[in-house]
Amino acid sequence: MCGITGYIGYRDAYPIVINGLKRLEYRGYDSAGIMMYDGENIHLSKTKGKVSDLEKITEQEELRKAGKIGIGHTRWATHGVPNDTNSHPHFSESGDLVIVHNGIIENYDTIKKELTSRGYTFKSDTDTEVLINLIEEVKKNEGCKLGKAVQLALNNVIGAYAIAVFDKTKPNELVVARLGSPIAIGVGKENKEFFVASDASPFIEFTKDAIYLEDGELAIIKRDKGIKVRKIETDKEVDADIQELQLNLEQIEKGGFDHFMIKEIHEQPKAILDTYRGRMLPNEGIIKMAGIDDNLPKFLNADRIIIVACGTSWHAGLVGEYLFEDMARIPVEVEYASEFRYRNPVITSKDVVIAISQSGETADTLAAIKLAKSKGAFVFGVCNVVGSSIARETHAGAYTHAGPEIGVASTKAFTTQITVLSLIALKLAQEKGTLSKTAVNNYLQTLQQIPNQIEKLLEIDPLVQHISEVYMHATNCLYLGRGFNFPVALEGALKLKEISYIHAEGYPAAEMKHGPIALIDENMPVFVIATNKGHYEKVVSNIQEIKSRSGKIIAIVTEGDVTVKEIADHVIEIPETEEAFTPLLTTIPLQLLSYHIAVMLGKNVDQPRNLAKSVTVE
Amino acid sequence: MCGITGYIGYRDAYPIVINGLKRLEYRGYDSAGIMMYDGENIHLSKTKGKVSDLEKITEQEELRKAGKIGIGHTRWATHGVPNDTNSHPHFSESGDLVIVHNGIIENYDTIKKELTSRGYTFKSDTDTEVLINLIEEVKKNEGCKLGKAVQLALNNVIGAYAIAVFDKTKPNELVVARLGSPIAIGVGKENKEFFVASDASPFIEFTKDAIYLEDGELAIIKRDKGIKVRKIETDKEVDADIQELQLNLEQIEKGGFDHFMIKEIHEQPKAILDTYRGRMLPNEGIIKMAGIDDNLPKFLNADRIIIVACGTSWHAGLVGEYLFEDMARIPVEVEYASEFRYRNPVITSKDVVIAISQSGETADTLAAIKLAKSKGAFVFGVCNVVGSSIARETHAGAYTHAGPEIGVASTKAFTTQITVLSLIALKLAQEKGTLSKTAVNNYLQTLQQIPNQIEKLLEIDPLVQHISEVYMHATNCLYLGRGFNFPVALEGALKLKEISYIHAEGYPAAEMKHGPIALIDENMPVFVIATNKGHYEKVVSNIQEIKSRSGKIIAIVTEGDVTVKEIADHVIEIPETEEAFTPLLTTIPLQLLSYHIAVMLGKNVDQPRNLAKSVTVE
Repeated sequence: MCGITGYIGYRDAYPIVINGLKRLEYRGYDSAGIMMYDGENIHLSKTKGKVSDLEKITEQEELRKAGKIGIGHTRWATHGVPNDTNSHPHFSESGDLVIVHNGIIENYDTIKKELTSRGYTFKSDTDTEVLINLIEEVKKNEGCKLGKAVQLALNNVIGAYAIAVFDKTKPNELVVARLGSPIAIGVGKENKEFFVASDASPFIEFTKDAIYLEDGELAIIKRDKGIKVRKIETDKEVDADIQELQLNLEQIEKGGFDHFMIKEIHEQPKAILDTYRGRMLPNEGIIKMAGIDDNLPKFLNADRIIIVACGTSWHAGLVGEYLFEDMARIPVEVEYASEFRYRNPVITSKDVVIAISQSGETADTLAAIKLAKSKGAFVFGVCNVVGSSIARETHAGAYTHAGPEIGVASTKAFTTQITVLSLIALKLAQEKGTLSKTAVNNYLQTLQQIPNQIEKLLEIDPLVQHISEVYMHATNCLYLGRGFNFPVALEGALKLKEISYIHAEGYPAAEMKHGPIALIDENMPVFVIATNKGHYEKVVSNIQEIKSRSGKIIAIVTEGDVTVKEIADHVIEIPETEEAFTPLLTTIPLQLLSYHIAVMLGKNVDQPRNLAKSVTVE
Repeated sequence: MCGITGYIGYRDAYPIVINGLKRLEYRGYDSAGIMMYDGENIHLSKTKGKVSDLEKITEQEELRKAGKIGIGHTRWATHGVPNDTNSHPHFSESGDLVIVHNGIIENYDTIKKELTSRGYTFKSDTDTEVLINLIEEVKKNEGCKLGKAVQLALNNVIGAYAIAVFDKTKPNELVVARLGSPIAIGVGKENKEFFVASDASPFIEFTKDAIYLEDGELAIIKRDKGIKVRKIETDKEVDADIQELQLNLEQIEKGGFDHFMIKEIHEQPKAILDTYRGRMLPNEGIIKMAGIDDNLPKFLNADRIIIVACGTSWHAGLVGEYLFEDMARIPVEVEYASEFRYRNPVITSKDVVIAISQSGETADTLAAIKLAKSKGAFVFGVCNVVGSSIARETHAGAYTHAGPEIGVASTKAFTTQITVLSLIALKLAQEKGTLSKTAVNNYLQTLQQIPNQIEKLLEIDPLVQHISEVYMHATNCLYLGRGFNFPVALEGALKLKEISYIHAEGYPAAEMKHGPIALIDENMPVFVIATNKGHYEKVVSNIQEIKSRSGKIIAIVTEGDVTVKEIADHVIEIPETEEAFTPLLTTIPLQLLSYHIAVMLGKNVDQPRNLAKSVTVE
C-alpha cells in the first residue's frame, strides 16, 4: 500500500528521500509528499499524482538544499480521497511535529472528537492527522520527550501502522514504530547516518545493514548516536537485530518472493483481515459499513440486485449472487458489464446495481454504472483503488483493502471482493431478519478464522508444486464446481489461462453431461472442488463419471475426506468452514497451481502476454 | 416425425406392415397402430407405446392372418396427447374409410365445426379424424370414388400431410398423397404388389423399384393393376417416375444423408416453419399460442421470468433473455437447472419460470420445475417431445415442432426453441405495448423469411468444408459473439466439443481482454460472429486485437460486409435479418463446421463418446 522513506545523517536528504520514494512506486500510490528540515524551518511539499510531479513542484532550491534530515511518503488512499490535503506528511496543531503513516487507525473518530473538544483543528480527512495531534497532546500533557509520547499515544490507538515522526524541537532524531505494516531501518557506517523505509529498496545502495522492526516495536534514531528499540506496550528495551541484506533490489520489492503474484497470494490472509477489520465485531454480531449503513432502505427495498463486472470481478460477483440470495433472500442477476451496457437492459429505480472492479477504472464497468444511473438505479461500488473513477461515479461503496495488486492475474483482489460481498450479504440478512442473530454471529466468527486458515493452507505449496509438475504439459484442463464453488471453478480456469496459456474451462459440475464430458479422456486433467458442504454426493458422482472415462482427477476436498481420496488421482485438503466461505479457501490451491505451472513453463507470470492489469478501454 | 407403412398384394400383410413400422422407429414416436382387412372386415388395433407393445396386443390369430392388405402408423404427437384414442389409424364416421396421416391440418378446427353441424362425431382430438370424415363427406356428396374424394378434400385443407387411405367398399386399392411430408411407393414385380412407406426402408428387402411422390401429388394404387399419379390441385395425370433404389437401409433412414446430425441440420428450414406454422399471421400481426393466450395475466404481471435449462437448451434460454428483455421489457434471469434446484433460489408466485428441454425428460430441469412449483411460481414448458414428463409437469407450454432429433448433438431443437421464444417475446411485447404494431408485424414478416434464408445459407456447405479442412487439427478454439450472438458463440463451441472432442470455448467478445486473450497465438482459431447489427464496430475492434496477436480469424458476417473481409482469414456470409433473429442464421455455419470437422477426424458424429441424447439422471 503506502510507502515511507526517511533519512537522517550527513548527506543531502532530498535526493535520498525522493529516489527512495521512486523505489517504492511498485507498491502503488496516488499521491506523494516530502518534508525537509533545514536546521531552522520545516519545508513540506505534497501533491496528488506521481513522485515525478512532486519533484516538479519542489524545484525551488531552498527545499532541495534544505538539509540532512527528511521524510517522504507515497499514499494509497484508504481514508479520504486522494488529494493534496490528504497526502502525507501531516503537521501537528503546533506545527512542530510531522508524521508519515501507513495503515489504518480504526478508533480515529473517537480520538478526533476528544481532540477537537480540546481545541485541535484538522485540515485533512485522514486518521493520520488525528494520530500526530494525539502524540502532541500526550507530549504536552506528560511533558515527555517525543519517543515516550509516541509510545504512550500508540498504546491508545487501535489499528495498524508504520510511522515515522519528526519533532522540530529535537531535530537530530526520528521516531519510527510498526504494528501490521513493515518498516526497515538502514544503519550507516559508524552510526553516522540512518535510513528509514517500508522495505530496504530505498537504501540498499547505501548500506547492507538493516534492522527490521517487529510488530509492536518502536525505535528512536539519533544522528551520530544510534538506535534504541523498545516494545510499545511494555516499554521494555530490546536488542536491535542488525541483518545483512542478501537480496537485490527487485527481490526486496517483491518481499523476497520471485514474483508479485506469489507475493500477493501470500498476502491474502492480511488482505482479507484488512478488508473486514473495523467492519465487524463478531461476538457482538455488529457489522458496520458506512456505504451500506447510510443507504439501508435502498438495499432493503430493492426488487433485485444487479451485479456488473468483468473477468475475475465477475466471478466474485457470481459468488455474491449465491451469498445474497442464500443469506439475504434478495434476487440477484450477475451481468458481464460489456453485455449489460449495450443490450438495453430492463432496469429501474427499484434496482440496486453493485459494480465490482479492482482498479476502479474498468471501462465497460464504468459505462455500465453510468447507464444504470441514467435509468435511476442506485449504484454501489466495490473497488480496491481508493478515489478511482468507479469509486467517484457510484452513489456509495465499500473498498476492499487488498493493497496494491501488481501481478496481472488477480488473486487477493478476488478474495477481498468476496469478503466485502459476504459482509454486505450478512448485513442485509441481519437487517431483513432472514438469518437469526446466532447465525449471523456464527458466520462472522467463522469469517474471522479465514485469514489464519489461509495462512495454514498456504503450507500445502509443496503438494501443489508436485501436482503442477505432473500436469504442466497438459494442453487442456477442466475445472468443475457446484453452488458457491462453481464461480471458483471459473476463476481457477481463468488463472491458468491467463498466465500459463493452457486452455482451461470452468463448468458447473452437473453441466458436464450436457456436452463437455465428451472431451474427457486419459489426457484431460479435471480439477474438481468437492468440499463436504454443498451437495458433496452429487459431485462425487460427477467425479466417478469422469474417472470411468479415464480422466485425471485433482480434487479439492475438506480435511478428513475419505470417499474422494479413494477415487481421485490427487487430493488437496482445505480446512473446514461454512459453505458460503469455502470459495475463500478453495481458490487458494488453484491460484498456487496456476502460478507454479506458469513458472515451470517459463512464462512471464506477472506480465502475461496480451494482458493489461486494468482494462481501461472497451 | 410420424411413420407410415402399407401393403397391398398377395402376401400376408401383417408381418410386412409390422416390420415396416419397426424400420421406421428411428424417426421417433410415442404410439403405434395397424389396420388389416380380411376380405370382409376391418381389424384395427392401436396403442400408446412401442411397436413391440402393438405386436403383443395383436397376438390374436385373426388379425395376424387377416389378409393381404393393411396400413400401419407410428405417431409422434402434435395435436392431442399420446394415447390409444389419438393413435392412428382413424376410422371415418361410417366405419368404411380408414386413414393414417403424418403432418398437421391447420384449418381442422373450422372443418370440424362444419362436419359436426352435419352430424359427424369425433372420438379423438386429432386433426386426422377430421380429414377422414371430410373425405367421407365429399365422397357422399359428390358420389365419387375414393381417389377423387381424397383429391377434392385435400384441395380444401391447409397444412402438411402424407396420407394413406383405405376404403372397405373398394378393398383392392389404397390412395396415398403428400404435401410437405414424404411418401414412397415400392413397386413389386409385374405390378402384383405395392408397398407404401414414409421412406423406402420398410420395403427395400422386397423391391428396389420405388416411386417418390412429389409435393401435391396423389396416387391411386390398385392390386394387380398399377399406379396412377395425379396433381391434387389440377387433376392432371403425371407419369410415375420409378427409381431404382441405390441406398442401403441405414442410408434411407437418414434420408440420403451420411448422419442424422447433418440430416437434422438440413431439416431446420422445415422445423422452424413447422414451429411457427399456425401460430402467427404476419400480415395481420396476429400471434396465437394457446399456452400463452390462456395465461396472459401470469406473464404480464410477472416480476421477472426465470429460464431454467441445461446444455444447448440453456443457450437457447440465453437468447430468450435478450429477446424478452429487448422486446417485452421483462427482466429475465437464466439459470442452469442443476444449480437452480440446489441453491435455495429466491422465487415467488410473482415469478414465471420457463423450462426448456428438447426431450422433456432432462432430470435437472424437471427437478427445477418441481421446486419452482412448490414455491408458487407459474411454470411454462418449451419441449420438443409431446407428452414428455416436462410437458406434463408444467402449468402450460408450447411445443417446438422440430420432429424427432436423433443426433446427440442438438441442432434443430436449438433453432426451434429460439423460434418459440421469439414468438412468446413478440406476443408479450404486443400485449404490453412495448413494441408498436408496425414493429411486431415487421418482426413476424422477417421471421417468416428465415426458413428460406436457411435453405439458401445451407449452400455454403463447400466453403465450410474447406474451412473445416484447414482447422480440423486445431487442439483449441475460441468462439466470440456479443449480444444476441453471445449465446451462439457458446453453442458453437459446445457443438465442436461434443462431436469432435476439440476443446472449444465461447465468450462474450469484450471479456477477451479480461483473460482469454492470453491464449491467442498463431495456433488458435477464433470464430467470431460479426454481423452488421449489434455493435459491429466493437466486434471489429476485437477482431483486430486478435489479429494483432496472430490469431486466426474465421468470421461470420452479413452479406456484403467489407471491413471484416479485409482482416479475417475466412468469412462466412449470412443473409440480412433483424438482429434479434440473427442467432437462427449464425448458428447454421457453426453446426456445419463442427459436423465436418468431426467427420474428417473420423469421430462418431451421431453418438459421440460419453454423451447421451437426453440426460434423464442428475
